[in-house]
This record gives sequence, C-alpha cells and structure tokens, in this order.
Amino acid sequence: MNKIINIAVVGLGQVGNYLLNELNTKKKEIELKTGKKIKIVAVSARNINKKRQFKVDKKLFYKNPLDILKKHQVDILFEAIGQSDGVSKKIVETALKNGTHVVTPNKALISKHGNDLSKLAEKNNVNLEFEASVAGGIPVLRAIKEGLATNKISKVYGILNGTSNYILSEMENSNKNFPDVLKKAQQLGYAEPGNPKLDLNGFDAFAKVRILSALAFNSKISKHKCLMEGIEKIELKDIKIANQLDLRVKLLGISELKNNQLFETVHPCLVSKKSYIGNVNGVMNAVIIEGKPVGESVLQGEGAGPGPTSSALLSDLLSILRGNIKKPLGVSVSKLKSLKPYNVNNYVNSLYLRFEVKDKSGVLSQITNRLAKYKISIKRIIQTPDKKNDKATIVIISHKTSELNCNNCLSIFKNNKNILKTPTLIRLLG
Amino acid sequence: MNKIINIAVVGLGQVGNYLLNELNTKKKEIELKTGKKIKIVAVSARNINKKRQFKVDKKLFYKNPLDILKKHQVDILFEAIGQSDGVSKKIVETALKNGTHVVTPNKALISKHGNDLSKLAEKNNVNLEFEASVAGGIPVLRAIKEGLATNKISKVYGILNGTSNYILSEMENSNKNFPDVLKKAQQLGYAEPGNPKLDLNGFDAFAKVRILSALAFNSKISKHKCLMEGIEKIELKDIKIANQLDLRVKLLGISELKNNQLFETVHPCLVSKKSYIGNVNGVMNAVIIEGKPVGESVLQGEGAGPGPTSSALLSDLLSILRGNIKKPLGVSVSKLKSLKPYNVNNYVNSLYLRFEVKDKSGVLSQITNRLAKYKISIKRIIQTPDKKNDKATIVIISHKTSELNCNNCLSIFKNNKNILKTPTLIRLLG
Repeated sequence: MNKIINIAVVGLGQVGNYLLNELNTKKKEIELKTGKKIKIVAVSARNINKKRQFKVDKKLFYKNPLDILKKHQVDILFEAIGQSDGVSKKIVETALKNGTHVVTPNKALISKHGNDLSKLAEKNNVNLEFEASVAGGIPVLRAIKEGLATNKISKVYGILNGTSNYILSEMENSNKNFPDVLKKAQQLGYAEPGNPKLDLNGFDAFAKVRILSALAFNSKISKHKCLMEGIEKIELKDIKIANQLDLRVKLLGISELKNNQLFETVHPCLVSKKSYIGNVNGVMNAVIIEGKPVGESVLQGEGAGPGPTSSALLSDLLSILRGNIKKPLGVSVSKLKSLKPYNVNNYVNSLYLRFEVKDKSGVLSQITNRLAKYKISIKRIIQTPDKKNDKATIVIISHKTSELNCNNCLSIFKNNKNILKTPTLIRLLG
Repeated sequence: MNKIINIAVVGLGQVGNYLLNELNTKKKEIELKTGKKIKIVAVSARNINKKRQFKVDKKLFYKNPLDILKKHQVDILFEAIGQSDGVSKKIVETALKNGTHVVTPNKALISKHGNDLSKLAEKNNVNLEFEASVAGGIPVLRAIKEGLATNKISKVYGILNGTSNYILSEMENSNKNFPDVLKKAQQLGYAEPGNPKLDLNGFDAFAKVRILSALAFNSKISKHKCLMEGIEKIELKDIKIANQLDLRVKLLGISELKNNQLFETVHPCLVSKKSYIGNVNGVMNAVIIEGKPVGESVLQGEGAGPGPTSSALLSDLLSILRGNIKKPLGVSVSKLKSLKPYNVNNYVNSLYLRFEVKDKSGVLSQITNRLAKYKISIKRIIQTPDKKNDKATIVIISHKTSELNCNNCLSIFKNNKNILKTPTLIRLLG
C-alpha cells in the first residue's frame, strides 16, 4: 500500500455521513496509529442536495457509485448503501476484483452473499471487513476471530436488535402499547421511518446470527430455513404479565451447536429480571459467548446509530492500514465446514401461552385437556376475567416441551370458537 | 516467518502448563487459521519433576531459560514466570533483541517495564503481546487497541482482580469473615497459597490499570504515585451494612482523564446492587470503557485461571502468526504522551465511614462536629449499639467531599480515645 491511501465512501445516509466526518476529523490520529495518510477521493449518494448533518464536498460527488472505481485508484471502499443485492453487491464485487479493500456495515449483504464475497476477497488478496454489521460498536466479530480464536465455542446469543430492545423496554417503562412506542422510536431515529419491518420481524437480528455462527463455528454462512419470530405480536398485556412474574421480554438471537448440528434462531424470550440479559435495556446490544477454555464472555455496548457504527467501521479501516490481510471469515472459505441444520422440532423450552377466551365454563378444561394430550404439562395458570366483555385472559406457563408438540397442540386451537384469537406464545430462556 | 514456527515456553506453573497442553492439542486448528505449523522446541521451569496437570516432555526441558535462546532458533517465546524483574525481564529483553516475538501474561513486568520493552520490540520489529496480562480471557486490550481504535476514550474502569471479587462475593454469600474466606479462596486456587498480598492490597489491579491507561489514552505507562487500597480492611460488618443499604462492596480499578491529567486509582467502592457492576460476582472480571463516538462498552468474562489466561495467550499467538506486527502500546513509544498526574486531593466522592466507638454520650456529636468543621455534610447516620460491650458502631454516609477534606478530617480522629479504632472508609461510586 502506498503511504497515501485513497478512500471512497458510497452511501451517505446517517451512517455514511457520520463516517465521512469522522474520517475527515481523525486523519491525524489515524496517521499516528498506522503511519498512513488517508485521502477521501470520492463519495456517492442518490441525492447530492439532501440535508445532512455534516457537509459533503460536492467536488468529490458521484451520482453513480460504479463510476468512482472507473475514474479513481481507490485503495479502500466503504459501502454504506445497505442493500442485500443490487448496487451494493455490484460495487463490492467490482471493488474486490479491482484489488480494493472493502469495509461495510451491511449485514443484509454479508449474511446473504458473505461466502462468495469472502472467496473473492481472498482470491484478490484484499480485506473484506464487516465488524459494523453485527452489534454496532461492540467489536464482537474481532473478539471471536482474534481475541477468542482457538476457543471451542458452543453457543453465541444475545440481544442483537436495538430497535426491538428499545421498543420492549419503552413499552414497559411508559405503559404504552406497541404502535405508540414504535412511533416514538421512529421519531427518535431508532426505527426506520418508512419501513421498520426488518427490525421488528427478526430479519435484522437473524442476519447477524448467521454472521456470528460462521465466525464462531468456522462454518459457511448458512442458508437454512430457521425459526424466526420478531416482536410484532408482543402486546403490552404480555409485558405486564411478565412483570408480575418477575420476567422481562427480550428478543434474542441464538446460534448454537447441538450434536454438531447448527441451530440458529431469533425469537422473543422471557428472561428473569434478575439475569444479566434481563437488564440490557433500551438500544443496548449484548452478546454472550460460551467457549472453552475461556468460559462465558459478555460484550455489551450501543448496538446501533451512526456513532457506534462509525467506531466499528474505523476499527476495520485501522486494521487494514496496519496491514492485516485476513480471511474475512477467519478461515479460508474453502476450509469452512458446511454444518447440517438442527431439527427445530426438537427445540425444547418452557412456554408462556396467553389465550384470550370467552368467559364461560369449560373453556379452561378444553385448553388443559388439549395440552395434556400433547404431553405439555402445566407449571402455572393465571386466569384474569374481563367480566364487562364476557372474556377472560388465561396465561399458562408450561414445563419444557418440544416445538413439535407445541405446534401440533396450538394448531388445533385455531378451530375452537371459544378461543377468540391465536394464542400468544413466548418461549422461556433456559 | 518460516512455515514451521519454533516456540518455547518458560515457566510451567498452572498457566504455563495449561498453555503447553493447549499448544499441543490445537496445532491443527492453529494451522487451519494461520497456515503456520507450530513446533514446541523447548520449555523451562525451576523443577522438572513437580507434579503437573499435563505431562511435560522432559527432552525439551531446560533448567535455565536463558540457555534456550542460546541453543535454539526460537520464533515465539511465551514468558510465564511472572516476575516484575529478574529472569522474567532478562529473558524477555534477550528474546526481543534476538528478533524473537514475546507473548506474556506478566502484568508486573509490563506495568513496570512496558515502555522500554515496547521500544525494544519496535526497534527489532517483533511483537510483544500481553493481552493475558489484563482481565484474563477478556480480549480487552485488543478491543481498545483495535476494535475501539480512533474512539476518544475518557474513562476505563472495572473489576480487575478476580481474587478480591471472589472474596467479597463469598463473604456476602457465606456470611463468613475475611480470613476464613481467604482460606477457602486459597484452597480453590483463586488466591496464591503462599503470598496473596498482591491480589488483596490492590497491587495486581493497579498494574492492570496502568496498562489500560496507556492503551486508552495513547500515553506512556505511568509511574505516578497513586491512591491504591485493597480489600484487606473490609470486614463482614461492612458487607452486611452495605447490604442493608442496597449496596455492595467491589474493588474497582479506575483510569480517567480529568482536565487532560491522568487519574489512576484502585480502591473498594460501594456500588448499587441494582447496577451492572454490582452484579459482577465471584471470579468474574468486567471492564467498562467510555468512548466517543461508541458510547459505553462493557466486556465481562473470567478474569483469572489457566483456561481464560491461555485463551488470551493463544489469541496473541494467532495474531503474530497472521503476521500482524503491531506497536505493543498501539502507538510508537516515541509518540506516546506523558500525562501529568491529576491531584488526588481533588478526587471527590460520597463516603461511607464506619466508626467503632465507646457507647457514651457526646461521642456522636464529637464526630459530627469534626465532620462539619471539614465541611463534610452528612446524608445518613446509622448507629447500632453493642450494649454488652459498652460500644457502638456509627456508620455515616456523607455527601460528596474531596480526598483532602476527608484525610484532614479523619487524621484527627486518631487521637480521640472514644474512637476505638481507625475508622473504615469506603468510597461510593458516582
């Protein structure tokens, strides 16, 4: 690498714009730490005139990001457009083939095309770095690839979506229901104003789980169909009942080796209010890694926002400037394992089931009979009448049972007219 | 570096012995991740015949570690003897001068001679790695040097001594006093059987604070005289009273920039039982880093023991094998700042003061008058009589006051015959 490093930033949304400012203001520090001078040679965004927090030098501006690679010798490209395919994929591929290092926070791209892109980076002997794609400012990928390298990791799990965690915390704190809190989250910039779906349905957390799995288990990024649920069905009612039980609802992402098979999932969980994970609130993320011989490691930090994301992007930049050419997935793609998927039917949990029913005699016994038939034994029942509306809420906490039993059992309730809506299911952790 | 890497391990205590076994059993994985084959060419310890958990090949054995470097071309040396000077310093210096990379968990050596040794490593273009010297298996040094590089860090603090944290937790759990719990800690291998002093008087945590400061603030490892207190004076009584106040005693190490001056300290702290740090119990360590733009980052894990330590030592090995020659202190020693020390007299805290007094009228007013004279205002008083012995315990929680006021005030109580022993002082966090 020459002493002056040409940098391009494509995508000038909140993250890209903040990053650009950091690059401009920290040139000296970067030189101190790496001996390299950086120079921003080009930027790109859909709209040059959009109002942005930090000014952008219009002379560097390109409408089409692909033109940048044609006109400049770019050493390092930051991709902050954020698509899983389209121009994001195109420019990253083109850059890698050109011998340009790539840094990106784009979890959608990496979780979908990470195997192929890593191969391309290896072939061209350049870096493809994506620390910012998982858990924002927490250097968790580097911790797994480097700090905990050679540990035998058996499980990685945690709170991986700041938007969902903020909404769940805020519902509890403000006693407001989901749509109101979502609106507030959007106003504060914690949730996408247009389409927050990918945060709320578990997709975003799932993309992160897939990336964590690959690094933790030295396996290819999986394409398995998995159990994925978001927080959309969680009502204020559930949060209040959980509170009475000294529990809290958290959206967890889990990646685990079970009998050498890969189990990946994202779903809401009830966790103890006294547990560590039960106290990671607001936009915080936390990742827990179980490994041997290190034991349990916990990493917590702000999981989203332009500041933490830029922190991770710059750490990748410094890694490249220090000359660390590394396999993007820790091990050469050709040597990564292809893990078989664990059968989700065998996933075992205690369950929280909330039924909204007609308040008439025999309904509870219909439910409990059904559960008994599927060998789902009951630990606790809380029935709350709603006399005015002739309704009742029945919450059942079960002993441990498998997903198969649970699905079979629940499917039958659909046809029961005394049960007014699809029961709400939340799994209990541990 | 050649494809076969010659390794020597000097010091075969619990850590060195465990490390040796990990190196032997993980050769394949190391080759997979780095493309390098490692070969252990020599080991050294005082006593070849000592009973060890894992067998040592006697053919590799040297009594004098310095002979190893004369007889072998060693690429990477692990120093696990653990002295701050003496043979530890000698062999590390010799190795670095020979062009041999060095990996060590030796915080005493690094905190005392880290500046000079880093300079030597830079001059000879080799690595000096010491991830294992701070917080055991938690990759905190790498997080600061790499994962959070370019953040402006203002404070690093946490629980840095597993022995002290275990003893404090166990006193609370078992309701036993300090000497009994220390004995148990020694039996379990959490405290040195011979001389546990360096863990208990804050020295060990302080060495770690000095290393953290240097990396966090891009400054030389300091030699300032600082406020250092261990847990030796904490009695079961204090732990019980704290409990009533919903507080918990924790030994904290703190490194902070105050007005661009360096403030480093280790002392017991009263923290809320509901806080994160108040729930890091047993042998766990936790480090909290406050930086911009990343926000607050937390790293938690097992802070001691051969397993976690070996995890960190191997992560350093892999870093070297991947070809990452880095400045040991993140920045070239010649460019590190020399920070002036913050005047500890200006350190401000709420105080917990426990007085053991004669149970006679006027004693409380003597104490409160004295406090008033030094402008230490009182938030809370708890007086517990011990009628049988004509004594009483007075606990005072003060509003915030400076160390200067506190020291001046407390020094006077020494001559008060109604006060039966030196008052116990514990600072409150925040």
